[in-house]
Amino acid sequence: MYDFTNPVANLINELRKIPGIGTKSAQRIAFHLLKTDKDRVMALANAISNAMEKTRFCRICNNITELDVCEICSGSDRDNKKICVVEEPFNILSIERTGLYRGKYHVLAGNLSPVRGVGPDELKIDSLERRLGPEGIEEVIIATSPTIEGNATAIFIYDLLKGRGVKITRIAMGLPIGADLDYVDSVTIAKSFEGRVEFK
Amino acid sequence: MYDFTNPVANLINELRKIPGIGTKSAQRIAFHLLKTDKDRVMALANAISNAMEKTRFCRICNNITELDVCEICSGSDRDNKKICVVEEPFNILSIERTGLYRGKYHVLAGNLSPVRGVGPDELKIDSLERRLGPEGIEEVIIATSPTIEGNATAIFIYDLLKGRGVKITRIAMGLPIGADLDYVDSVTIAKSFEGRVEFK
Repeated sequence: MYDFTNPVANLINELRKIPGIGTKSAQRIAFHLLKTDKDRVMALANAISNAMEKTRFCRICNNITELDVCEICSGSDRDNKKICVVEEPFNILSIERTGLYRGKYHVLAGNLSPVRGVGPDELKIDSLERRLGPEGIEEVIIATSPTIEGNATAIFIYDLLKGRGVKITRIAMGLPIGADLDYVDSVTIAKSFEGRVEFK
Repeated sequence: MYDFTNPVANLINELRKIPGIGTKSAQRIAFHLLKTDKDRVMALANAISNAMEKTRFCRICNNITELDVCEICSGSDRDNKKICVVEEPFNILSIERTGLYRGKYHVLAGNLSPVRGVGPDELKIDSLERRLGPEGIEEVIIATSPTIEGNATAIFIYDLLKGRGVKITRIAMGLPIGADLDYVDSVTIAKSFEGRVEFK
């Protein structure tokens, strides 16, 4: 039967390995690339190999960096007493954009997920625990997503670290700014009631 | 302000140039790649450069091929009197999977779209017209998508080729198999009435 020529079938196959890219998307991306100016596509191939070769994970917090220790961990203007625990390196950027938080970070590199075979050993939880004593941490702020997996991860970390003399907090769940109460799901509304704060 | 390290920012930027991949998807793909085993990611980078280097467009129909003339155009078992006009090379595979059509193809490499600046000269319409005489074509089957742009392209090709002594047809629009009439939009239902066929 007629099929894609080998190099194209191979490219589609490699693209399909990226989470969130299915067969149809992989086909569209592959044919888009083949239609595009060769120099621009080679720029993508080079960007991939370049990023792989030049970057590594920060020895302390697992953030992506070009150095042994990332810019935030080595920053002299950061609050060393707080660690914010996030799922992925790009979460750091989202939090940094608020300009509000000046502490350190710790990247777990995922969430607990028994379904996908991700247990505590697959995440950077050990290295989080080891940071507590030597770094003089006073507060661990858990900023995993309010999903089933993010919640399970938050609870696991709380159980592991409680009684270690550090304050453990989790970022608030509630109504997003600009939301219309009529259109917000009831679990979110329930969370926003539970987490209500006193007017000052 | 804190930002992604340069090789990562560059990779995200290159990924964002692919249609259908926005900033968030590009970030997720980039960090997925950085977390993945280096050999597997290099396999992707190589698959991209390999596909670019080894493939070209068929001189006759613009399908993707490793040869000068693609497998279908050079196939001795194909019906040389029919050309099916499609938007993209991957459409050929979808049609071939039905096993029903044994004619040739012609890839337009897109649809007319004044909004995106795609006129007749940007598509492979000239080369379609030039195939009519020498190849002894009797029927041109237009298989562009039933979208505004696909319809405009179909009408343009019909206007161009009518009076050239070839039969011009378009693949039928109507209810997809398994559809519930209650859930099908009225334009599709109207099309399925217009295109109704006599019971035999």
